[in-house]
Amino acid sequence: MKIMVGGTFDPLHDGHRRLLARSFSLAGPDGRVIIGLTSDRFAGSKTHPVEPYETRKAGIERFVREEGYTAAFEIEPLSDRFGSALDLDFDALVVSEETLPVAIEINRLRRERGKKKVDIHQITCVLAEDGRWISSTRIHRGEIDEHGRLRPDAGTSAG
Amino acid sequence: MKIMVGGTFDPLHDGHRRLLARSFSLAGPDGRVIIGLTSDRFAGSKTHPVEPYETRKAGIERFVREEGYTAAFEIEPLSDRFGSALDLDFDALVVSEETLPVAIEINRLRRERGKKKVDIHQITCVLAEDGRWISSTRIHRGEIDEHGRLRPDAGTSAG
Repeated sequence: MKIMVGGTFDPLHDGHRRLLARSFSLAGPDGRVIIGLTSDRFAGSKTHPVEPYETRKAGIERFVREEGYTAAFEIEPLSDRFGSALDLDFDALVVSEETLPVAIEINRLRRERGKKKVDIHQITCVLAEDGRWISSTRIHRGEIDEHGRLRPDAGTSAG
Repeated sequence: MKIMVGGTFDPLHDGHRRLLARSFSLAGPDGRVIIGLTSDRFAGSKTHPVEPYETRKAGIERFVREEGYTAAFEIEPLSDRFGSALDLDFDALVVSEETLPVAIEINRLRRERGKKKVDIHQITCVLAEDGRWISSTRIHRGEIDEHGRLRPDAGTSAG
């Protein structure tokens, strides 16, 4: 299958790893995964500083290489919520709980454009040790690390 | 993975086949698929007559056998929209566009009960020759057959 997935992936935490792992698993060993990566300008609307596009791209490439996925993949810049998901032919979108509404909107807009709708695979968010979601914001605040482990200096500077 | 899917499956049309095929594909060869099949009483609220539970169950079993899926599977009666999906431990729900809201509700109710949320895989509906969804209602009306082919006597009695 040809799969699309998107995000900022900064830093690459266990929630992102789950999103990417599921994308490659759905694609299958001979499939294709298109990873939309937010441009620096689009990611700039986040409440915390974000690493440059090329750094984030290298992090994803390292993860894919380490996991040994054999599906073809490419990383392309996302300059809005939709990227090329409105126009490309593909089979399924992989999203998190937070981005399920975007996937539903993508299908609505594809339909308006006369494109076929795509399947939607929503993964549940990965929980940190404290039972709350792992998120980049929490990691940047210094509450948890990228695996969701609580940091001893939680609540203070990110250090 | 352990997958749950549900429906009335009467008659077993190409949309149902896609739902079941994806469920077994996600489960993997060593996985497990729980198929919730509406009870005769619950299915009785449909606008068209429905075959008995045992007949519908046999249709699903025949399909699974013919496709050669190796994952373990069981068919259990659904007497409401949720069945055992609120209480069982499993990984992902496979739903159609029509039943995505039920899946979101199941996750909300699981959370309330202290159960972990599950992943949701929504497939797009299979289209008939005329570009509209294949549905049991349309088949019962005699508009299309179970593969979505238009019937020559469309619009008249189902014959």
